[in-house]
Amino acid sequence: MLNVSIIGGSGYGGGELLRLLLGHPQVQVQQVTSRAHLGEFVYQVHPNLRKHTTLKFCDPAQVEPADILFLALPHGQVQTQIDHYAELAPKIIDLSADFRLKDPALYKKWYGQPHAAPQWLDKFVYGLPEIHRGEIAGASYISGVGCNATASNLALLPLVSADLIDKSAPVYIEIKVGSSESGAAGNAGSLHAERANVIRTFSSFGHRHTAEVIQESGLNDVSLTMTAVDLVRGALATVHTKAKEGIATKDLWKAYRAASNDNPFIRVVKEQRGIYRVPEPKIVAGSNYADISFDLDDNSGHLVSICAIDNLMKGASGSAVQCMNIMMGWDETTGLEFCGLHPY
Amino acid sequence: MLNVSIIGGSGYGGGELLRLLLGHPQVQVQQVTSRAHLGEFVYQVHPNLRKHTTLKFCDPAQVEPADILFLALPHGQVQTQIDHYAELAPKIIDLSADFRLKDPALYKKWYGQPHAAPQWLDKFVYGLPEIHRGEIAGASYISGVGCNATASNLALLPLVSADLIDKSAPVYIEIKVGSSESGAAGNAGSLHAERANVIRTFSSFGHRHTAEVIQESGLNDVSLTMTAVDLVRGALATVHTKAKEGIATKDLWKAYRAASNDNPFIRVVKEQRGIYRVPEPKIVAGSNYADISFDLDDNSGHLVSICAIDNLMKGASGSAVQCMNIMMGWDETTGLEFCGLHPY
Amino acid sequence: MLNVSIIGGSGYGGGELLRLLLGHPQVQVQQVTSRAHLGEFVYQVHPNLRKHTTLKFCDPAQVEPADILFLALPHGQVQTQIDHYAELAPKIIDLSADFRLKDPALYKKWYGQPHAAPQWLDKFVYGLPEIHRGEIAGASYISGVGCNATASNLALLPLVSADLIDKSAPVYIEIKVGSSESGAAGNAGSLHAERANVIRTFSSFGHRHTAEVIQESGLNDVSLTMTAVDLVRGALATVHTKAKEGIATKDLWKAYRAASNDNPFIRVVKEQRGIYRVPEPKIVAGSNYADISFDLDDNSGHLVSICAIDNLMKGASGSAVQCMNIMMGWDETTGLEFCGLHPY
Amino acid sequence: MLNVSIIGGSGYGGGELLRLLLGHPQVQVQQVTSRAHLGEFVYQVHPNLRKHTTLKFCDPAQVEPADILFLALPHGQVQTQIDHYAELAPKIIDLSADFRLKDPALYKKWYGQPHAAPQWLDKFVYGLPEIHRGEIAGASYISGVGCNATASNLALLPLVSADLIDKSAPVYIEIKVGSSESGAAGNAGSLHAERANVIRTFSSFGHRHTAEVIQESGLNDVSLTMTAVDLVRGALATVHTKAKEGIATKDLWKAYRAASNDNPFIRVVKEQRGIYRVPEPKIVAGSNYADISFDLDDNSGHLVSICAIDNLMKGASGSAVQCMNIMMGWDETTGLEFCGLHPY
Repeated sequence: MLNVSIIGGSGYGGGELLRLLLGHPQVQVQQVTSRAHLGEFVYQVHPNLRKHTTLKFCDPAQVEPADILFLALPHGQVQTQIDHYAELAPKIIDLSADFRLKDPALYKKWYGQPHAAPQWLDKFVYGLPEIHRGEIAGASYISGVGCNATASNLALLPLVSADLIDKSAPVYIEIKVGSSESGAAGNAGSLHAERANVIRTFSSFGHRHTAEVIQESGLNDVSLTMTAVDLVRGALATVHTKAKEGIATKDLWKAYRAASNDNPFIRVVKEQRGIYRVPEPKIVAGSNYADISFDLDDNSGHLVSICAIDNLMKGASGSAVQCMNIMMGWDETTGLEFCGLHPY
Repeated sequence: MLNVSIIGGSGYGGGELLRLLLGHPQVQVQQVTSRAHLGEFVYQVHPNLRKHTTLKFCDPAQVEPADILFLALPHGQVQTQIDHYAELAPKIIDLSADFRLKDPALYKKWYGQPHAAPQWLDKFVYGLPEIHRGEIAGASYISGVGCNATASNLALLPLVSADLIDKSAPVYIEIKVGSSESGAAGNAGSLHAERANVIRTFSSFGHRHTAEVIQESGLNDVSLTMTAVDLVRGALATVHTKAKEGIATKDLWKAYRAASNDNPFIRVVKEQRGIYRVPEPKIVAGSNYADISFDLDDNSGHLVSICAIDNLMKGASGSAVQCMNIMMGWDETTGLEFCGLHPY
Repeated sequence: MLNVSIIGGSGYGGGELLRLLLGHPQVQVQQVTSRAHLGEFVYQVHPNLRKHTTLKFCDPAQVEPADILFLALPHGQVQTQIDHYAELAPKIIDLSADFRLKDPALYKKWYGQPHAAPQWLDKFVYGLPEIHRGEIAGASYISGVGCNATASNLALLPLVSADLIDKSAPVYIEIKVGSSESGAAGNAGSLHAERANVIRTFSSFGHRHTAEVIQESGLNDVSLTMTAVDLVRGALATVHTKAKEGIATKDLWKAYRAASNDNPFIRVVKEQRGIYRVPEPKIVAGSNYADISFDLDDNSGHLVSICAIDNLMKGASGSAVQCMNIMMGWDETTGLEFCGLHPY
Repeated sequence: MLNVSIIGGSGYGGGELLRLLLGHPQVQVQQVTSRAHLGEFVYQVHPNLRKHTTLKFCDPAQVEPADILFLALPHGQVQTQIDHYAELAPKIIDLSADFRLKDPALYKKWYGQPHAAPQWLDKFVYGLPEIHRGEIAGASYISGVGCNATASNLALLPLVSADLIDKSAPVYIEIKVGSSESGAAGNAGSLHAERANVIRTFSSFGHRHTAEVIQESGLNDVSLTMTAVDLVRGALATVHTKAKEGIATKDLWKAYRAASNDNPFIRVVKEQRGIYRVPEPKIVAGSNYADISFDLDDNSGHLVSICAIDNLMKGASGSAVQCMNIMMGWDETTGLEFCGLHPY
């Protein structure tokens, strides 16, 4: 059993990490920090963990060396202390946005200020196994992924891998998201009475996760449009673009089946009958699956690709644990076997 | 007080018509039919109307002549009996899809079979006052509107009126809808346990309302993508296209303000602060408003236009009553003064 | 048209007052205050009011004399300034809890501190027309009602009026409420991700509104148990007690019918068929109705009484406007005609 | 690995059984039947199981002998075929209501007709391990539990075990439930547009599960009041009764702690701080936990006990698998380790 510790364990990403790591057969959770909840039992903040752990939140200053360190802090904090964290553990997985972008200029453009530790950018591997499995296997430092970027990148994966998109066409990605994306702190618009029943397009374009999609897909004319809907967990990305001349439905089937065959957590959902014919976030809630599908309008060339994930799992903590498994040489699915609930 | 009767009053569209007409100062509801609920009090099916009416549902065969006849039947039924209905009343407003399309070929293409009364198509005016106010004023026969078509057409209205779209670009319309769109009969996927928490893209393109958008906007390369979300009332249309070369944000403001100034039920919502910065269906629930907004990405030319409506109101019964008001020369907003609820 | 002003117009109660008063034919809203939103348009905070008013929030210090003053401030504030407010207007309706209890000792017991203006307690009439219609007609000062107290008091009304309860039995009132009861400020547990999907019994007994139920019903062994559920507007009170020896269902019918006949906003809902057989808060959302019903178990004497209200309407602003109507000699239902929505 | 088969696998209870048994290390699912979905892949009906099984639904007539047979059929069917099922497997766990009541007269009273196989009633053990663990260990035939009965019985467990209730007082149990209780077939009121946003008290007393509460608790003056709320999974039972003279809070703590110590799936939730201070169904969704708590009003003796469960898990399939574990001598928690999700 390896020792893992979590810096920043009181948020939703940290809570999900705790749930996964407490049930993981290869690790034991040594310490978990929270300044706001110092000294409280972990289960007082994450009530689902009651009877699963008697850990208490400790102060970040008390963190001891560990085999693997998970960082689940607000964006911008890790980059100023990365040297310190690197002394605590030989392996680091950072869930924040700090080390996702490889290009300091891209970071500055999307995050509005220069990166505080640009020399570290190259040491981190972008933690999406479906794209970087090989590099992750040999990595010491892994960056977590943006949830909306992940839904987008996995919707694009088969299209990009098989080169099916007409490069001259723009790529519009409509993302519908649940309220857990706003985090445990929330904002004025996150109050239940204001957030319930919404269909709220809070960003037409310009969302920061766009940078990760551009970096990982190699596409340029990409927009992410963000719409909040009434749900807690889940994100659905719908890609609208044009298929390359000559592409037919069978080419798409081939690409999507390949994505599913090559990746344990990707499933193609494209049924002709029943209630669940397409990917739906509610079906993957709590699981690490990314369900994908597509449609091609032969007349217009309109190509639609869809990806449903749980933003806290495949879009954050689930991918992080999957990366740990790959990095440590364990079975990729260890500790990630939960299949989701129906009905939900 | 004119006498109005409703054929097909037990569905959601019929119930909303009843609510509006029972509170309308210029009309009295004479009869309302329902085969399934024959003899029941109207308020047993529409419980909000208790203490507002003691009407009972009668048989369609018992309908007597009226000043205005509202038809709220399933699609396909009115076209086979339109001659009969025309004998009952000099003014008809039909909420079904039967007389929305002017071109019998377009009807056949989208509805899969020939129209049963093509000679009547020209007699009906498409009942969207924001586009056909003048014709409606002089009409005897008015066709209701499709709810998703209306959200789309009103999102497009300022762009089409002011000719702001790059005609060579496709128009992708993402529509998110509540469960009342499935009607009071529903389907297997409408069961609460299956429909709650959904983000379900049930149609990537090919929705029948596309025909109304093509007809009314004059645009051709148009796709409607339909996504069900967890909400009862409401539809949000998000248009993605490209702005014409040279179009700037001020041109868009001008066009959107004109739409608001010219139409009592159109409001522009584009705030820099507060919780409600963009159009949201929950804010217009129960009201006849269409809230619209836009965004233009100067770098890419990506143009986003948004419209939020209550699908049962502006998308169906509200527009129908608005048409009645215009047709009869009454103030356009009569009986439609309800402003919606906050919070909701 | 009388001039009315609202002190404290940015909360949910104030917003609902604005909606009602802006549509009321006998009054015009002169001023509305908010420190937090000073200078903002009212519709920026209450987005449903866009195109209904161009009022801006002003400073409380700028309030001018008015015919009627509505106070919608947090509890505890009015009692310290009541003399000032009384100089501004001859008629005052206070929505806070400050003047609901007639007995200073009862106030101290439930609110934990002495009342700051006990000499004013007698001047206020408790603003529930179904109990105090006569006094309200002659009053200058009216206290608003507690929402949970109102659901309870109206569930009890027929039972108390007709003396149907076994006085030796305890009265357990289970109240299920929506999130708007927490107000526009909310608390940590009001965040959507925490508040969605809840069935959260946050208070087993001891809720402050209990005092109003004891005062108005004359019953003593009364408990209010509060459970938050996933809904924005609405409260349902379910009373559990024992019927007096010899009471039969027909006695209950008689009492409930009388309550409905005597009060325009009370409706009895007790159907044998259809979906809506019992009172439901969603059906009265936005309306001023209180829907009531009952059940009697002949074997055990277990007597159940139910009342559904919209907590912001009949439980707060709707009752306040109803009181204004009665106080001013207008028709009791003026400005309160909205019947609610179905479906919702 | 033992072979288990499921008769009736397309409903919600059957789907949950499949989820649990497919992940159970000691068994393999041999066959699962469904007449309505004959030949379909199990994951087409239960979409969460995609990539977890390639089983197809088979015809009930094709069921072969198995080590353990789970029956998940509508009530009333098993009792007519129990001899046949007993030939197929030496161990049977029946989720229906057919063998829950030990007394044929009680069955007739609550189910309205005589039992078809009264001679089998004694052979079945009521499958609530927290009450019948010892008998279950030696049993061949186990009856599943009613979900509402289970929430009630576990709320009552510490009170009954420690004899803390005033026997002369009635026991009113208020149960709030999610929509999955209506099953995959549903009814008119289960349509999303009608079932969303509800607080619907559909039964004041007389629910059939009352019989199981009477049988298991030994209490007589018991009412179950059922209220549907907007949630898919979950049930909360709130017991209202009087404490025995002289009972203090410390006696209750002792009894509740004992219940938790003696039972791996019972947790006491009674916190003074944080968001989650009381049992909540959403926290146990997908898990087999029953979270319990209590409150005692020293003044009135009003005793409140609360139990939150997932109706499909602890209230049905989870308890069934727990019983299998006990019956087979495996660790009681095998295959039931999932701890639930937060946020949800």
